[in-house]
Amino acid sequence: MNPTDLRIPGPTPVPEEVMAALSHPMINHRGPEFARLLAECTVGLKRVFQTENDIIFYPSSGSGVLEAAIVNTLSPGDRVLAISIGSFGKRFGEIAARYGANVTPLAFEWGTGAEPAVVEETLRQQGPFKAVLVTHNETSTGVTNDVRAVAEIVKPTGALLLVDAVSSLGAIDLRTDDWGIDCVSTGSQKALMCPPGLGLISVSPAAWEAHRSAAMPRFYWDWTNAMAFQNRGENPYTPPVGLYFALSTSLRLIEREGLANAIQRHTELGEFTRRGVQELGLELFCEPRWASSVVTAVKVPEGVDGKRLVALMEEQHGVTIAGGQEHLAGKIFRLGHMGYVSRADMQRCLDALRSTLAELGWKAPAAVH
Amino acid sequence: MNPTDLRIPGPTPVPEEVMAALSHPMINHRGPEFARLLAECTVGLKRVFQTENDIIFYPSSGSGVLEAAIVNTLSPGDRVLAISIGSFGKRFGEIAARYGANVTPLAFEWGTGAEPAVVEETLRQQGPFKAVLVTHNETSTGVTNDVRAVAEIVKPTGALLLVDAVSSLGAIDLRTDDWGIDCVSTGSQKALMCPPGLGLISVSPAAWEAHRSAAMPRFYWDWTNAMAFQNRGENPYTPPVGLYFALSTSLRLIEREGLANAIQRHTELGEFTRRGVQELGLELFCEPRWASSVVTAVKVPEGVDGKRLVALMEEQHGVTIAGGQEHLAGKIFRLGHMGYVSRADMQRCLDALRSTLAELGWKAPAAVH
Repeated sequence: MNPTDLRIPGPTPVPEEVMAALSHPMINHRGPEFARLLAECTVGLKRVFQTENDIIFYPSSGSGVLEAAIVNTLSPGDRVLAISIGSFGKRFGEIAARYGANVTPLAFEWGTGAEPAVVEETLRQQGPFKAVLVTHNETSTGVTNDVRAVAEIVKPTGALLLVDAVSSLGAIDLRTDDWGIDCVSTGSQKALMCPPGLGLISVSPAAWEAHRSAAMPRFYWDWTNAMAFQNRGENPYTPPVGLYFALSTSLRLIEREGLANAIQRHTELGEFTRRGVQELGLELFCEPRWASSVVTAVKVPEGVDGKRLVALMEEQHGVTIAGGQEHLAGKIFRLGHMGYVSRADMQRCLDALRSTLAELGWKAPAAVH
Repeated sequence: MNPTDLRIPGPTPVPEEVMAALSHPMINHRGPEFARLLAECTVGLKRVFQTENDIIFYPSSGSGVLEAAIVNTLSPGDRVLAISIGSFGKRFGEIAARYGANVTPLAFEWGTGAEPAVVEETLRQQGPFKAVLVTHNETSTGVTNDVRAVAEIVKPTGALLLVDAVSSLGAIDLRTDDWGIDCVSTGSQKALMCPPGLGLISVSPAAWEAHRSAAMPRFYWDWTNAMAFQNRGENPYTPPVGLYFALSTSLRLIEREGLANAIQRHTELGEFTRRGVQELGLELFCEPRWASSVVTAVKVPEGVDGKRLVALMEEQHGVTIAGGQEHLAGKIFRLGHMGYVSRADMQRCLDALRSTLAELGWKAPAAVH
């Protein structure tokens, strides 16, 4: 079986060294070797999260960690402002609603980001809120929110700021402490270059304070229990041990490259991809000011079957890309460039795209910019 | 780094073929290859679960799947009988209580199992209950409950029977459909011979029926959402893809050995281990009638430091065993023999135990039976 180039917005390709680490023989998850591994991962993660806050580990996907952020800080009836710019933002708000939060949705059109001025106005007119939820990078639309600007607006209101950084952390600058973000949730399978299965969250002192009176029911996600175990080098439940070996290795890779360099590489990959797509005569789904440096959303051109395009890319060219989600199915396709990805990988993807469009009989309009 | 013999009651050693499968390059979790993998795992799991019921997959530990069983079938205020014979039984009941169930605990002394007659009497005197929770194999004490007998008593009362089979499934006979068990929860890291990180649960028609009116809040664990995705070959959240490759391989290993043979092998491993331990002059923690075939709990003999014994086994002999939990810390030690384990593995463990006891200056009492 010949693996394809995986150009979806996660899970992402896993470097060989990380895959090798994953295959470490199973160890006792309550012994000293695991305690060292947990400590090592924590130190490395704090650098990537840019925080001194506690980091809590879960055997879970990224969505699980969004749930953890909510049920640990809120009580039923708490007022929550749920900013959404796509599918994952909607999910974050839905989780809060399921647990009985009083959710005010603030949805922006898919393909745009959260306008700070509108967030500010909403907070002024409809606040106060106990918490504000926001997605850092929305993979369903290829848009990155200006979390720094949102934080500057939210923090003075006293609301907790809970950020979904599942697809951004390690690839797009996110200064947890400098910007005052209370919870940053992420997963192992995006820019952290590991297989999926490990969820991670940072918890600020204010989030801990909120936790003490947060009445939403919880057991698996409970921070008090999780931290009691982590403080003695364990997790409450059997952790995905192999992923800790993988993560300790991928964190060393990030350390070797340098976080700032990794972020810069992603910025350049985003620019390179958007330029390449436009040179093929295709149109980007979002305005340039919102464009993500980890996933590029492209409009399926007139007369082309979007599902067929995605299928041909994989079957004929061995490049796996993603289609659109929900109402964008068939209307956009998405190219992932997060984690273990180089410019050559994206060039190969663009080459395959050019050939596929030709195979589908599509011709770029004359006035290619 | 020379890995040790892992003789704890999970995570368990992973066969080479399974580890190789785990290292499969990452694939698209929303593509046809993943759909085939999910279907293949489902078919194999139904054989091991001995069921025609739906099986739902989660990125989680075993404890997460216990939570899934509860929040998907119950409403706050529902009366629940929580049978417990050790640490994991207590946990199952605690999860229900955290979500607002009206929990009646039925605790048996650690080291014994749930007496069917007592369960019957409790149901008659304190029933009716909406659900009964029971642990199949309690790893904290090395006791296996007679789930068949419990099911025969519970089913006629109309209560749902929710079974924690995290450490038993695939090693100890559990006839989900024949015995009428509504939910069987398990994890990938025990007798299924995979690394930890994948949680699994079977859902009977009666459990689905209960689900429709179950009002406990849930998002990550929600069955309706999970099944909607699984029916089209996906999971709602990014699944631990590598573990599906691993599981499809380990299920083939179980199929090759034959489930009945695997169960028989564990029965023999249990007998072999208990005999070996007694031949060393040590005392088993539980009565023989309750003895588990996947983990043997042994009393730390008079005058021996239990923590030192566990440490020496690992440091000097490369055999990792487990100590006691909660009030049994230092008083018992536990030898795991679940999953990818042979008689020779257990002989090596017993040899190391004999040497370690000698090193600690312990002498078996004269009247070794």
